[in-house]
Amino acid sequence: MSNAYSADLISAPRLLLGPGPSMVHPRVLRAMATPVVGHMDPQFFAIMDETQALLRQVFQTENRLTFTLPGTGSAGMEAALSNFLEPGDPALICVAGFFGERMVEIVSRVTADVRRVDAAWGEPIRPAQVEEVLRTRPAKVVALVHGETSTGVCQPLAEIAEIVHRYGGLLLVDSVASLAGVDLPVDRLGIDICYTGSQKCLSVPPGMAPITIGPRAENVLKARKTKVQSWYLDLTLIQKYWGTERVYHHTGPISLQYAMLEALRMTVAEGLPARFARHAAVAQLLWEGLAELGLRLFVPAENRLATLTTVVVPDGVDDLTIRRRLLEEYNIEIAGGLGALRGKLWRIGLMGYSARSENVVTLLGALGRLLRSH
Amino acid sequence: MSNAYSADLISAPRLLLGPGPSMVHPRVLRAMATPVVGHMDPQFFAIMDETQALLRQVFQTENRLTFTLPGTGSAGMEAALSNFLEPGDPALICVAGFFGERMVEIVSRVTADVRRVDAAWGEPIRPAQVEEVLRTRPAKVVALVHGETSTGVCQPLAEIAEIVHRYGGLLLVDSVASLAGVDLPVDRLGIDICYTGSQKCLSVPPGMAPITIGPRAENVLKARKTKVQSWYLDLTLIQKYWGTERVYHHTGPISLQYAMLEALRMTVAEGLPARFARHAAVAQLLWEGLAELGLRLFVPAENRLATLTTVVVPDGVDDLTIRRRLLEEYNIEIAGGLGALRGKLWRIGLMGYSARSENVVTLLGALGRLLRSH
Repeated sequence: MSNAYSADLISAPRLLLGPGPSMVHPRVLRAMATPVVGHMDPQFFAIMDETQALLRQVFQTENRLTFTLPGTGSAGMEAALSNFLEPGDPALICVAGFFGERMVEIVSRVTADVRRVDAAWGEPIRPAQVEEVLRTRPAKVVALVHGETSTGVCQPLAEIAEIVHRYGGLLLVDSVASLAGVDLPVDRLGIDICYTGSQKCLSVPPGMAPITIGPRAENVLKARKTKVQSWYLDLTLIQKYWGTERVYHHTGPISLQYAMLEALRMTVAEGLPARFARHAAVAQLLWEGLAELGLRLFVPAENRLATLTTVVVPDGVDDLTIRRRLLEEYNIEIAGGLGALRGKLWRIGLMGYSARSENVVTLLGALGRLLRSH
Repeated sequence: MSNAYSADLISAPRLLLGPGPSMVHPRVLRAMATPVVGHMDPQFFAIMDETQALLRQVFQTENRLTFTLPGTGSAGMEAALSNFLEPGDPALICVAGFFGERMVEIVSRVTADVRRVDAAWGEPIRPAQVEEVLRTRPAKVVALVHGETSTGVCQPLAEIAEIVHRYGGLLLVDSVASLAGVDLPVDRLGIDICYTGSQKCLSVPPGMAPITIGPRAENVLKARKTKVQSWYLDLTLIQKYWGTERVYHHTGPISLQYAMLEALRMTVAEGLPARFARHAAVAQLLWEGLAELGLRLFVPAENRLATLTTVVVPDGVDDLTIRRRLLEEYNIEIAGGLGALRGKLWRIGLMGYSARSENVVTLLGALGRLLRSH
């Protein structure tokens, strides 16, 4: 059924093992085909309410302000950064990859007072670096990426969270590549602002960005002196549509909300611990299999992100040729490196519905054959 | 098939006769259930290319920069206004309803130099008003709404277009409620920037904003001295993903793009003249039927928007009660008035797949019964 019209749109369904979008479960695909209702229909309000309740479970939070934004994960990043910073406010961005750089770019359009701490791509940010900067110059917002999809590093958060709060800042965490795949207890860590994308470990089609905002951040939002630059991503307005006021702001992406709700139901039904264990187990299977093929992983085991694995392209092997053949001959999508790592890495995602052992052995089989014949 | 999971999401499919979202054709709903491919997959690039070609036909333009934005119609409004204005640039907004006011709100966050001309809600902007302002103070961008869904007025554009260009400005037109329902020849009128929403006369689920940008506006974009405030809606970046460079910016809303392409194929297959004639004919049927029920239309015939009809709520009739009963007893959605017209108007949309004579007689039958029993 879900293929009824695919021949007119795509001729070759893919095994999606890149950094996202991930595979979408047939139940979620079917939800997308549900007839559209209005964005002010009581039936849709019920969907919004259930979505909020389930999102709180997945973010492991009791935050009142927990909902989805009508744009991709990058819209979530922009909303998170621009709603809690005003022109001139000091911000500290931790940069350890492509998406940390994107944060700097977005913040520089909001406030002139941006500082950064850097880690080499492939390494996590060290808490001492953050403290060193904050000691001399506190920041209103300290932002970092939990799972860097450009490097495959999972950033430890507990120590940094403690430091940021000790210096009176808001901790903003990008969980685009990690939420619902790797444990991220928002309330326990005291994360003040956290967003993700629909198309990664939640396995919803792209186009929505779940976000949660804690009480400290909510107070900062309330105390703003200037209007948020972007009307479309203005959380002071959007929250009134998701709250009991139901004040019309934008027309919600109804069909994507259907998909989000179905995916959240499946996520909560599986249970977060079981879901994290599944992601960890298939990652382990992948890592062992890659080692058997003689391939080297880019990130040491202790910092490795389960949901996105970076593999060093062996000497003498052409990155693009292998990826093109994986796609054309086996219908498998993986990704190459970004920025300075272009041509040097493969990025393999095992997220949400893509994170299954059958997918791992399929990829290993295809990759092994291609490398042998290369 | 398209109802397979609806019982878990919505229990009562609706007849959508409000100002949008409109009904989505089953073929387009099915397209949404097509397996997701990656946003850098050659198959998806082909979908993007076909979408651009068909969008040019629907906008009646040859503009190179013609694509969709990853957000709702309001995202289109913000992108259109914020990419062609820099801080301090003079802008003139024509305000004749709720969405004209929204333009003023968005522009005021971009530039301090906003002026406005106003028309009473229910009337169009008079060209002489625009000329009067421009004579004393030219504007870089003059913006107005073609079909105001808050009032049901269709704004004549030819005279205003001539004036705006004579004074050297860019003409920016919101066609959210009109494109693909009412004739809007972008190139013939010389419209420089035009955007719409997916969920109105194109009958795609909400979440995307098609936009087209003419050569004069493209030059203004190239000549910007400052970065666009919103990174997410920065057209200088987005155009590189839709162009031959294919530079990754955001992860496109793949499933919505499937739906958009199917809907555009259906629109072009129907033919624009036939589609406009259909919208005009069902509007005429509605207007006659409403007159037979003794109801008065808010807008005189010469300025009436075919796709959205505003009806004066009769004395002694409670707006909310009628709309609630239409929804609960007949599963028909229409909308009430916005702003100062709250409680005073009904707004009835006949857009895209909703614009069918069977829907008109269904609504007239239900409304007639409710008014008689009121």
